[in-house]
Amino acid sequence: MSVTAPQGFRAAGVVAGLKDSGARDLALVVNDGPSRAAAGVFTTNRVKAAPVLWSQQVLTGGRLHAVVLNSGGANACTGPAGFQDTHATAERVAAVLDTSAGEVAVCSTGLIGERLPMDRLLPGVDAAANELTRGDGGLAAADAIRTTDTVAKIAFRQSEHGYMIGGMAKGAGMLAPSLATMLCVLTTDADLPAQALDRALRAATGVSFDRLDADGCLSTNDTVLLLASGATGITPEEEEFTRLLTEVCHDLTRQLLVDAEGASKAIAIEVIGAASERDAVVVGREIARNSLLKCAIHGEDPNWGRVLSAVGTTDAVFEPDQINVAINGVWVCRDGSFGDDRDKVDLRPRDVSITVDLSAGPHSATVWTTDLTADYVHENSAYST
Amino acid sequence: MSVTAPQGFRAAGVVAGLKDSGARDLALVVNDGPSRAAAGVFTTNRVKAAPVLWSQQVLTGGRLHAVVLNSGGANACTGPAGFQDTHATAERVAAVLDTSAGEVAVCSTGLIGERLPMDRLLPGVDAAANELTRGDGGLAAADAIRTTDTVAKIAFRQSEHGYMIGGMAKGAGMLAPSLATMLCVLTTDADLPAQALDRALRAATGVSFDRLDADGCLSTNDTVLLLASGATGITPEEEEFTRLLTEVCHDLTRQLLVDAEGASKAIAIEVIGAASERDAVVVGREIARNSLLKCAIHGEDPNWGRVLSAVGTTDAVFEPDQINVAINGVWVCRDGSFGDDRDKVDLRPRDVSITVDLSAGPHSATVWTTDLTADYVHENSAYST
Repeated sequence: MSVTAPQGFRAAGVVAGLKDSGARDLALVVNDGPSRAAAGVFTTNRVKAAPVLWSQQVLTGGRLHAVVLNSGGANACTGPAGFQDTHATAERVAAVLDTSAGEVAVCSTGLIGERLPMDRLLPGVDAAANELTRGDGGLAAADAIRTTDTVAKIAFRQSEHGYMIGGMAKGAGMLAPSLATMLCVLTTDADLPAQALDRALRAATGVSFDRLDADGCLSTNDTVLLLASGATGITPEEEEFTRLLTEVCHDLTRQLLVDAEGASKAIAIEVIGAASERDAVVVGREIARNSLLKCAIHGEDPNWGRVLSAVGTTDAVFEPDQINVAINGVWVCRDGSFGDDRDKVDLRPRDVSITVDLSAGPHSATVWTTDLTADYVHENSAYST
Repeated sequence: MSVTAPQGFRAAGVVAGLKDSGARDLALVVNDGPSRAAAGVFTTNRVKAAPVLWSQQVLTGGRLHAVVLNSGGANACTGPAGFQDTHATAERVAAVLDTSAGEVAVCSTGLIGERLPMDRLLPGVDAAANELTRGDGGLAAADAIRTTDTVAKIAFRQSEHGYMIGGMAKGAGMLAPSLATMLCVLTTDADLPAQALDRALRAATGVSFDRLDADGCLSTNDTVLLLASGATGITPEEEEFTRLLTEVCHDLTRQLLVDAEGASKAIAIEVIGAASERDAVVVGREIARNSLLKCAIHGEDPNWGRVLSAVGTTDAVFEPDQINVAINGVWVCRDGSFGDDRDKVDLRPRDVSITVDLSAGPHSATVWTTDLTADYVHENSAYST
């Protein structure tokens, strides 16, 4: 399932030996066609890992035959030699699949600043190619791209019009302002040209992964790829396809949110009454990045003053004495001052909703984040050791 | 000492009963002249506490007779009634000192969104007025403005030209991008007009408090005031005065940094080789706000990849393959890739220095921050309970 839910795809996940733990660490996803149309979105970080630079270049052609992904090393900040490693990885995939390296995307995740052990990675590519399957391969691939993810993330949706969209994702730390730190491969057996896939992918990620902000840290490696095999021969309406793709992305976003490192709360920040959607996102993201508020939610303290102090640092349209804030449905702040009794707020459930009404217009947006916990600190204090 | 080190100032710190702990919570600083020239800088947060709105208005006159400060409540997000409370506080000070409320600044710190208990605060003003002294009063005042500060922060410098600058500050959490969350009162017995004080204060705070960023959270209450009594009759060169004032501000900044909530490391991020000072500050601040890096430093892990991923999110002038990073003097990253052996970095001392060379120009700046610790989470999860 996952990336192999749609027709025309095979996948595998194997142990190449990149992780000390001996867990799966190399995944391969192959599009058997007949179409090879593809699109991708990448991290906006200006320090980009070698595989991002490579895959961006590959995607300018709008075609992908395969994607090879590894955990156990980000291959970021590794200089020209690191780029050569990515190139060699794509060439090895091309060789075993008898295709062109120019149609092979590469994704890496793990520690920044270390070369990948190519003597183990390249034989891993061969092993993965030998294990490609339509069924369990999708799950093995989703498992192989995990770093600190406690579970593999997969999703799929069947269209009533007969085609399917599937996907897998990884990401648990460094979940950030623009694209959660993540790798994600989406597949479909619908038949759409690369430009249509690109539009749909940007629309879907713009309201899902792009609005997940666990810790404000933007990765060097974020990559989301969409591959279409066209195996059903069905060409859907672009709007319906985009809607279904957005559902899959939202499903994966939710899985990333719930599994974020050290998080004990899944917080949805809904900004309403904004003068523009951009304002709503800016305000939501600023709240999502406020360490003090995230600590308060962790402590189950409905500290709405920290919400207002975060809103006040943005350039969004609002008047301080017209802001309303609800936490889990209780309007604890009205007109910029104290409102209903904060003792009525029950913050024990894992899901927390914060609604901020800017009273400045008709627009809205939701940003998702996590609480800030001692577990987050512990996980990220010891990551590279 | 502290604010009473210069001639012409008296101060007091008393227990008004605003804090449940029974500790001092109200401070009064009085300028006995002959000059009353003053200047102030305030939070850039658009959600401003009532005392900030009040004091900004007062400072437009360029004169201050007194400053009253309370801990135990921020009087922020308290609506028109909260503003009236601030006004009434200034009026009470004016009454006991036989002056105008238009020359009384008010500062508050504590929890946002709750009214101050005026029935205790106003008698506290009377008590403070009765205890004003030139000596110990400065220390008592510095003690009274503490919230989670574990120690009072005071500093003073004697000019070789015969005048003095003194100061007190508080601030431990919500230390933020532009002005650490803090209250600070600076005094001098030099004789300078309000405009000169304003220029000197902006110059001094711009390179000290403004470059302290413990948790990226900008407060609603930040206030730094500078009062000149002119009691020595000395009018210093503005450049020399600014240099001395900057020293006092740096001294207090260092004290705030070391006492920041839950911090176990004091981190100086020096950005060199920048195309502009603005670029250097932007890069330094982005690094200072990177939760993953702050966790890594807490774990004594010289994780330079997290430095580069933070730099990459800025719009500063740089090329990714020309960045060099030193941690505690070891150049662990050269030309955007791994450099000297990271095992040589000793991160056990409390003071940590991170040097980032952008290789893009002659400008530099230093931003100070703390590590992110489980103690920070604990302190801020339980603050309002």
